[in-house]
Amino acid sequence: MAQRNPDPAHSPAQGSTRLPASPRLPAPLGPGDSPEPGNPLTGEALAVYLRAQATEFLRALRLHRETGGAGAAGAEESVDAARALRRSARRISAGLHTFRALLDGDWSDAMRPELAWVSGTLGLEHAYEARLERLLLALHRLSGTTAPPARAVTAGAPLTAALAPAPGAGGVGPAAVPERGPLTVGAAKAGALLDRRLTLARTRAHSTALQVLGSSRFHAVADRVAVLASEVPLAPAAPAADPRPPAAAAAERLTNAIAALPLVTAGHPYNAEALVHGLSPDPSPHPQDGPWHQVRLLLRLHRYAQEVLAGGGAPVDVRLPAAGRALDRHRDASEAASAAAQAARTPRIAPATAYALGVLHADQRHEVEASRFAFQQAWQPRTVTAL
Amino acid sequence: MAQRNPDPAHSPAQGSTRLPASPRLPAPLGPGDSPEPGNPLTGEALAVYLRAQATEFLRALRLHRETGGAGAAGAEESVDAARALRRSARRISAGLHTFRALLDGDWSDAMRPELAWVSGTLGLEHAYEARLERLLLALHRLSGTTAPPARAVTAGAPLTAALAPAPGAGGVGPAAVPERGPLTVGAAKAGALLDRRLTLARTRAHSTALQVLGSSRFHAVADRVAVLASEVPLAPAAPAADPRPPAAAAAERLTNAIAALPLVTAGHPYNAEALVHGLSPDPSPHPQDGPWHQVRLLLRLHRYAQEVLAGGGAPVDVRLPAAGRALDRHRDASEAASAAAQAARTPRIAPATAYALGVLHADQRHEVEASRFAFQQAWQPRTVTAL
Repeated sequence: MAQRNPDPAHSPAQGSTRLPASPRLPAPLGPGDSPEPGNPLTGEALAVYLRAQATEFLRALRLHRETGGAGAAGAEESVDAARALRRSARRISAGLHTFRALLDGDWSDAMRPELAWVSGTLGLEHAYEARLERLLLALHRLSGTTAPPARAVTAGAPLTAALAPAPGAGGVGPAAVPERGPLTVGAAKAGALLDRRLTLARTRAHSTALQVLGSSRFHAVADRVAVLASEVPLAPAAPAADPRPPAAAAAERLTNAIAALPLVTAGHPYNAEALVHGLSPDPSPHPQDGPWHQVRLLLRLHRYAQEVLAGGGAPVDVRLPAAGRALDRHRDASEAASAAAQAARTPRIAPATAYALGVLHADQRHEVEASRFAFQQAWQPRTVTAL
Repeated sequence: MAQRNPDPAHSPAQGSTRLPASPRLPAPLGPGDSPEPGNPLTGEALAVYLRAQATEFLRALRLHRETGGAGAAGAEESVDAARALRRSARRISAGLHTFRALLDGDWSDAMRPELAWVSGTLGLEHAYEARLERLLLALHRLSGTTAPPARAVTAGAPLTAALAPAPGAGGVGPAAVPERGPLTVGAAKAGALLDRRLTLARTRAHSTALQVLGSSRFHAVADRVAVLASEVPLAPAAPAADPRPPAAAAAERLTNAIAALPLVTAGHPYNAEALVHGLSPDPSPHPQDGPWHQVRLLLRLHRYAQEVLAGGGAPVDVRLPAAGRALDRHRDASEAASAAAQAARTPRIAPATAYALGVLHADQRHEVEASRFAFQQAWQPRTVTAL
């Protein structure tokens, strides 16, 4: 194929037209983008991708500082900027990992843990917020109350107010207002407890993120990303090297990990597998979730490697988006179930609160099972039979 | 068809060869049995069926008395006899209901509530025992412990002993013995609480059953069943009447009730429908279960009507066994979930106990959802897609 032969008409130097010095910054590369039409699949495809992601990182960082990290925490633009920052950090890190052979190895090995630290630390605040939202939505669903407006969900207090009986209203209300018995009070108390715990965790994560963004360690990372945006430290042979073998290796690691998953079981609806150990005393996440989390990471590495190749016209696996969403949901439900179980260990809670947290835990473990089924269906769809 | 024309070679009197006076009693009719080869489909088919079921009722009653209700409660033969008694009472009652037009109406209307009282009262003991077994098995599954031997499951105490930490064993045990943390203690306490409650209910049901079997009201029922075993009070026109229209009406009632079920939702695995209102304060069974319970009863009436016709060679719907099992499981899981929720209202229970009961409740509600899916698959199998 022509792609294997570097086209002299597209020299590596052309990539430098996409440097961050330009006032109008280019959009990051996505699957299907083909920034260099006819670009041959060489190390230069990787360089183009890494420069674009580094540029996006710097753009997001500038936006995050302008929209104000500290003061306007939670402002929509600031949240978007933080997400874009994590998004590009993940992609750069993945590129350094998958295509390490095409890069300066020492530089790559020093850079990756720093990027993981950035995306990990900056992602915590959002993770706690999303976890609380997921759990409060589930409590509403389980209480048969209609889903509250989005703002009330994340605020926490409105949920408690909506679920708790009005002061002095002890008995049965009018038909239009559902009766509030002890277990509904349990759901309200469980919601308030989760709100307290996860809001505290989120606030701490927010403070940590601000400290990180102001730290000299982070500034060093940003400086290195700025260098990356103009100059990718390729290995000497990389400009002419084929990036497809390392991408194929990433695909193979994914395929092998998926082959080890219990997909036959997952493809049987209601296999009741995810709630085994649901009453186990181990506070750590279910060990059975580990291989699925691992596949989620490998699938992401594979997807980003595909993005690198996509600039050269490589085909994209149409199963990836749905499979990735299923695994994200798996991770979210797994962590939400753990959060409910951990909250149930709070000393001196009422039995009704503990009961509601038990129902909530089991509900989220079934979400775990449902997302495994969804992954199986996305990856190898076939006729399903009941157990 | 020849079946519509009564064959003079098979006069109604032939049915009297199956009277209970014979020392060797005939087996009850089941689908596919054809006791009267070439028997035309007339009211006589119903008479044959009712006589056989009445005979079976009397045989089971005799066996139950011989194997000794009071003293040897729980002995296997006695349990089998009680089950056979309920089984024939249900079939007689269903026959009187579906084919009322072919019978003496007053007699039928007087007899049916008495048979419902007998099968209902005698079924309670078994229902409580099965419910406890289902819940304790689920607790074992949820605790990640292997299922105990059958005797330990129903005895209750061995479960508690198996789950509770050994006296003085406070910390982490050797790797071979799973660590027993607070929530496992919660599962053990939940099991002990359910054992106490359901064993008490079962014991009361057993006493009630013994009182029933010794009551003059029951003796009156048994006397009337003895008469039925030799003389079915058919309506004047019944010997020549076609039993298929009333059987078709029973089938139509079933079809209409199934058409009203949310089968599209049920056919989507993990639709999370059964646990909506999982934290509702209403102690009564979920109202959404009602239509399914109703279909379960209508399916049983349809099946018994098919049994009546089967003597005349009518086709049997192959979907009935699997669909019936799914609805039985639906009923059992629904009632087990309620039992867990009710136990959680016990005053002064520990939070860990309440948490375990919450997990157990949600687990059984997912069993409810799973059995709806199984019913949908049995009734109208098709390709399933993930939500």
